[in-house]
Order: sequence, then structure tokens, then C-alpha cells
Amino acid sequence: MASAPRWLSELKKALSVPENKGQTVYQLATADPNGRPHVRTCVHRDIVQPEGYPNLPVFILTTDVRSPKISQLRANPQAEVAWWMAGSKDQFRIYGSVRIVASPKADFKAGAPPPPSLALDKMDEQGYDWEKKRVESFNSVNAQLKASWCRPVPGSTIGSYDEASKWPQKLPKDGEAQSEEEEQQVEQALKNCAIVLIETLEVDWVQLGVTPNQRTRFTRKEEEWVEEIVVA
Amino acid sequence: MASAPRWLSELKKALSVPENKGQTVYQLATADPNGRPHVRTCVHRDIVQPEGYPNLPVFILTTDVRSPKISQLRANPQAEVAWWMAGSKDQFRIYGSVRIVASPKADFKAGAPPPPSLALDKMDEQGYDWEKKRVESFNSVNAQLKASWCRPVPGSTIGSYDEASKWPQKLPKDGEAQSEEEEQQVEQALKNCAIVLIETLEVDWVQLGVTPNQRTRFTRKEEEWVEEIVVA
Repeated sequence: MASAPRWLSELKKALSVPENKGQTVYQLATADPNGRPHVRTCVHRDIVQPEGYPNLPVFILTTDVRSPKISQLRANPQAEVAWWMAGSKDQFRIYGSVRIVASPKADFKAGAPPPPSLALDKMDEQGYDWEKKRVESFNSVNAQLKASWCRPVPGSTIGSYDEASKWPQKLPKDGEAQSEEEEQQVEQALKNCAIVLIETLEVDWVQLGVTPNQRTRFTRKEEEWVEEIVVA
Repeated sequence: MASAPRWLSELKKALSVPENKGQTVYQLATADPNGRPHVRTCVHRDIVQPEGYPNLPVFILTTDVRSPKISQLRANPQAEVAWWMAGSKDQFRIYGSVRIVASPKADFKAGAPPPPSLALDKMDEQGYDWEKKRVESFNSVNAQLKASWCRPVPGSTIGSYDEASKWPQKLPKDGEAQSEEEEQQVEQALKNCAIVLIETLEVDWVQLGVTPNQRTRFTRKEEEWVEEIVVA
């Protein structure tokens, strides 16, 4: 039976040390069809894998289906994450191919043909319920973030900062609305919530907290992770 | 007389609050000629501008001229930085065109034609001494980082972590070597030290520390910065 790649246990170990407490955000880089790089801070949500394949981890994060990163990822379904853990001075750079799971009700078309996949195809074969995962992900984020998904399109121009005070500031989980108005808002927010799946293909781990610094590159070849020691 | 863009004073203000102390690193995203995004953590070094043009700020960071980010930037001279200040929950995303200043002794060719520039061209006209700035930048980084520039090519494969212990761990400033061997090492490191100049063209500032969240987009049109309030 395959085992989880070493980088993943090292990543979990690094995250668990007290000095890295709360380091749950990382920077997600994409490139648009014109080759322009984009990068923004995102919250890490989860790691999943096909049943019986701990060697094929998939990162999950949530976003607004109307956000520019979604159109960038539709056109160019690959991304790199830089996860800098300032406490221990570990950096994990995680590159992979991307699939987006949007609401069946969202105005969303898949875009570019899906890149070669192994983990995601296996999960599809195993009947993994991505829509259920999407709703679970929606329910797991905080009330402010839920509310952000029933606002006008992210990044669109508004007249003043005050306009934002007219929009809902918090929303409950799916099924927990307290009024008909709130129910409609939750429905809208849930429709705009998408999850981004990153099938991990390469990981570059730099340890700046050890002297001399160490750096290790992990590359997935088919189902195996190949490990190389490289110059930091 | 032109003035500095508001985003820059807000960035400096955010950096100066106690809860953001030490937030001097950010993530730099590039895209390679195949459209693959790359992102890594870098240390912010400086901001410069042409004399009399505080409206045209240029970010500076240091790197190894042999690193993959340099070949990516040669082929595609644009970059975006995500500067997340966890203390105050401010994010500044800074996009711009890139120029690389390498040592005259380095094996470096400029690559793609330089993108349209305003700040850098003005600084050239004003006789700004980029080589002097490069050497100053070299001298300003810590002794460990200086030493990293006289090692084998970053990212190249080595047999074991132990190999790194054979390389110098610290190097002094240019002109302060204590032996002939160290002098050669400093010379080598200085040759491999390059500075990356990012001429700022767009800035996206999100304030997650205020309720409701605020977001402002700044776009440079010719020499003017246009400011828009946008949906966070």
C-alpha cells in the first residue's frame, strides 16, 4: 500500500510546532492567459486524497466563483502555493494542476480542458461527492466570509466604502437561516462559493531554520514521489 | 510637484504599527514562458524613485542571478507581490514591470525587450548608478545570505545535506574580507548578486482589519495614480 509523501508529514509536523500556530494562510499564484502572474493570500482549508491513495494529496481552498482567480484558473488550470511558516522558517512551495468545483446553479463553465489528473480521476471513479465537500467547505468558513459571497462581484467598482455597510456582514450555515431574507442570502452565497482543488505535483521545501539551510525537491512521477536534495 | 501615491503612505503606515513588526517578507509571483506560475517568499529591500518623482516608486529585492526566478523574469519581465501583514490584516498586492540589474561580470543577457518604463527610464536619464545600488544592496543583506551566493547553482541537485557544510556559511561586505580565500568568495558572491526592480503599476489594497472590509485599487495611468473603491 502506498504511503503519504514525506513532504506532507513534514508539512504537518512544521504546522504543529507552537511557533507556527495560526499559520493557516498561504499565497496562491496563478497566471492569466496573457502570461501575467497574479498572487493573493488565501486560507488553507483541507487536504483530501482518493481512498487507499495517501500518496495523491489534493489541497482544497474556497473562493468566490466570480473572482478573477477563477477565470484565470479556468483558462490556465495550474497554480503554485507558497506556504511560509515564519516561526520555524520553513517554506513549502506546492505546485499542481487545478480543478474548480462550482455550484450546479452557478453560471460557470469548466474552461480549458482539464489537465492530466490521477488523484481527481480516481476520486471521481470512487464516487467522491464533490458537491457535498463544497457545501461542507461553505459551512466551515466563518460567518463574515460566507457573507462576502452574497455581495456584488469582488473587485467591481463601488461609489464609496459606505456601500459595504448595506450588505449582510455575517451569514449562518446552510439550513440555519433565521428569516426568509437570510435564507435567500445564504442561497446566493452558497451559489457563489466554489472550491479550488490543487492536485499536488511538485513540492519544494526549504528549511531556513537549520544551519546550513536545507532544501528538498519532491516530484510526483506517476504515483511515486521522487525526492532530491538541492542547493538551498 | 507630484506626490507619492496614497497606497505607498498607507503601506508605510501599516508597516509601522507594532503588530506588523518584522513583516518584511512578501511573496513574489512570476510566470515562466510556458505560462506556469511560480511563487516564493522574498525579503523586501528598498523603494527608490527618480529624483523629483515620488509618484513613480520602484521596489527592489535581491536574488541570485543563477536562480530560476531570474530566467523567468528575463523571458517575462513582470511580477506581482503579495504583501500580507498578518498583524493588521492588510494585504497589498503590487504588480509591475521588471528590470534586472546583474553584475557587469555575470554571465547574464537581458532577455526579452524591456517593458515600457517611466520610472526606470527617468532614473537612467538622471544618471542613477544602478551598479552602486547593487553593491549597496549586497552589503546590506546578512552574512548568511551573502554566503549563499557563492554556492553551486540554487536548486541544483546535490548528494546529501552534508555537502552544504563545506561551503562558506557567512561572508563579509565587499572590501572586508579577512583572507585571500574569503576575498575570492566575496567576489564570487557579489558577481552572483542581482537586484530585481519592480516598477509599480497597479496596487490592490485590502483591509481585512476594518469592518466592513475595505478594498482599494490604484492604477498608474501615465504619471498619475487613479484610485477606485472596489468590492472586497
